[in-house]
Amino acid sequence: MSYRILNLLSATEYVRRHPLAKGLLNSRATLECTEIGDGNLNLVFRVFEKRDASRSVLLKQGIPYLRVAGEAWPLSPERARIEAQALEQHHKLAPSLVPKPYWFDAELNVNAMEDLQWHQVLRRPMVGRTRYENLGTTIGEFLAATLFGTSDFGMEAKAKKALAARFVNGELCEITEDLILTEPFEPKLMGGKANRNNFNPLIAKDLAALQADAGVRLEVVRLKQRFMTCAQAMLHGDLHTGSIMASAPDAKGNADIRVIDPEFAFYGPMGFDVGLFVANLFLNSAAQQGHAADERERRAYRKYLYTQAERCWKTFETGMRQRFAGVQDISWSSKAFQTGFIRETLQDTCGYAGCEMIRRTVGFAHVYDLESIPDPKVRAKAERLALRLGRTLIKGSRGVSIFTDLMKLVRGVIPEEL
Amino acid sequence: MSYRILNLLSATEYVRRHPLAKGLLNSRATLECTEIGDGNLNLVFRVFEKRDASRSVLLKQGIPYLRVAGEAWPLSPERARIEAQALEQHHKLAPSLVPKPYWFDAELNVNAMEDLQWHQVLRRPMVGRTRYENLGTTIGEFLAATLFGTSDFGMEAKAKKALAARFVNGELCEITEDLILTEPFEPKLMGGKANRNNFNPLIAKDLAALQADAGVRLEVVRLKQRFMTCAQAMLHGDLHTGSIMASAPDAKGNADIRVIDPEFAFYGPMGFDVGLFVANLFLNSAAQQGHAADERERRAYRKYLYTQAERCWKTFETGMRQRFAGVQDISWSSKAFQTGFIRETLQDTCGYAGCEMIRRTVGFAHVYDLESIPDPKVRAKAERLALRLGRTLIKGSRGVSIFTDLMKLVRGVIPEEL
Repeated sequence: MSYRILNLLSATEYVRRHPLAKGLLNSRATLECTEIGDGNLNLVFRVFEKRDASRSVLLKQGIPYLRVAGEAWPLSPERARIEAQALEQHHKLAPSLVPKPYWFDAELNVNAMEDLQWHQVLRRPMVGRTRYENLGTTIGEFLAATLFGTSDFGMEAKAKKALAARFVNGELCEITEDLILTEPFEPKLMGGKANRNNFNPLIAKDLAALQADAGVRLEVVRLKQRFMTCAQAMLHGDLHTGSIMASAPDAKGNADIRVIDPEFAFYGPMGFDVGLFVANLFLNSAAQQGHAADERERRAYRKYLYTQAERCWKTFETGMRQRFAGVQDISWSSKAFQTGFIRETLQDTCGYAGCEMIRRTVGFAHVYDLESIPDPKVRAKAERLALRLGRTLIKGSRGVSIFTDLMKLVRGVIPEEL
Repeated sequence: MSYRILNLLSATEYVRRHPLAKGLLNSRATLECTEIGDGNLNLVFRVFEKRDASRSVLLKQGIPYLRVAGEAWPLSPERARIEAQALEQHHKLAPSLVPKPYWFDAELNVNAMEDLQWHQVLRRPMVGRTRYENLGTTIGEFLAATLFGTSDFGMEAKAKKALAARFVNGELCEITEDLILTEPFEPKLMGGKANRNNFNPLIAKDLAALQADAGVRLEVVRLKQRFMTCAQAMLHGDLHTGSIMASAPDAKGNADIRVIDPEFAFYGPMGFDVGLFVANLFLNSAAQQGHAADERERRAYRKYLYTQAERCWKTFETGMRQRFAGVQDISWSSKAFQTGFIRETLQDTCGYAGCEMIRRTVGFAHVYDLESIPDPKVRAKAERLALRLGRTLIKGSRGVSIFTDLMKLVRGVIPEEL
């Protein structure tokens, strides 16, 4: 069967006939299907038994263009293969932190996987100030497991090179290179490429000031070059709060947390993944300016967010050091090297976090955190916080040596305490 | 025809029957063949017309083991394909500085190319203090053309990623990682791997002191990590004076210079190629301690060598800056970024040069420059110079910001002037 875009009927039929669905669904059950995707790049279907909806399979199909831009932005379906391979690696290294992969169908560009039907994508509940007490530690553990495990520290050198060659993800890397690491910082582009920035007119002056800052620009170019050349580990590549799902928190505030959607996976600098995640906590913190009417409530949630950022880094660093202790190649057994590497990763984290905050405020793709503030004047206040913190993180990135340094920069711009 | 190791007869027959040899050799001429290889990894044949030996083809065949170690060190024949691809890139970017490629035969692992029959590999004549006045500028131009041209600065980002994926050269990179960047610096290895160092017993103490220097070790580990992760450009990967051929110098001392043998090609940090080349000039300088009986003659040749190193860097830097001026991606148009990138490449150059000097003195594979000094005591003097300079370059690498800084380190250990 050649490629075709699935719909509710054909998706149901596809699952009914697929041999690997046999162990997951009762072959005589009546199946139903709903479309649940809201992504830009894919169709997502849930196929479930009519009489027991808890028995289900999730299908994610790559479509050959970027949905938000219509057919004008064609994309190779290659990314479904990348996602399948990345999910396989993630599942091997952090099995309880991702959906279980069932199968990949190269012809239809379909990934079939565990349907996390009781889980919710984090972004919206977190705008509503829901707390997941184990968010930071869980993502820190995910980062340590997947980044160390796919690096030269966790793999034999030849195997790592061969794995890296399976993640040449040029098209999706280009999106990151352009939309995160170039356009937000450039009033004009070269070679006829259009600048796709999109921002609240009330912050036009703030953006102009940012773009006129030569120090920011130099750091961003350096970070872009590192992104494009520094093949340290297989990154998730798009680890924001829209790529994380969680169950409803239990009495202690803990949830079952899973990382989804690794279609941007490629070999890059570890700090990019860490930076994107913490930046999305800080974006939420900035956006609370327009969401939490009560000052005390706002500041309490900011405190929660910063605690999660700190726990994430601490868990990541501890996880890296524990894994370094069992390393096979004598070169990486040097404690001084390990400390230097972790510090360099922290500096990358700080820099990429700054880029993410800025591009989510003035670039092509925004976040619901800020977009959902209805009053443009109130939104501008939150956006200015995000811009200012982004700029501070970028310019301060080479000066941080422990995570407390980074959090001082954050608290200096958006304080949590009254 | 499946793979078989060629000999004089079958190589001649192979060329006679090959369709692409038609334009190169007279199809009715009687052909002769000589074997001219002395490499570790390949057989090299010259097939020529008996009545006009100037009409010839060179065949280079990959054999499935490392010659120097016998069949005990098997190697995948993959490297012949890598060499074919790298030579193709080199020929595209610097056509007059490499042999012209004729064809690649994947079944026999044969590269057929221009036979540089009037050219000589540089190492031996340079031990005899032959001067090639245009050596530094030629290699500087080769480096600028090939390194810039295969980097994100000279290629579109997606095309560069796709090209890089064709140079996953795990087996030959492992040789470099082990023999240049690990074993010379480690008295003991982990995981049962044997240390293959090999050194003059008279310098055992010097080596022990070097290996006890924690500062050296930390820098070397950092350089090894950069080598393994920093995919800046398609490197030659083995650019020593045994990988360069030159015609006899003309009256002005200029020669036709070609870079050969890019089978170690892979995507890595630019400074690795530059560093290996200048290190081999410095190794010659150290070795002259045992070759030039006359002090004046020795120092004059050292002055020549240092001039070539300086010209190489200057030409490389100028060539990079000229090419940066025409760059397509606005990010790389920042002068401050360019200067920073060139400085970082200089620091890599300094560090990798130091590693090369040390491994060629105490590691598995030595250089003729030092090995051809017959008296072990005299040789030890030269070897100590090489070790001391290697150590100085490694420890000083992060402190250099212009090439003069690097040459000060060199002249501080091995002065040229009386």
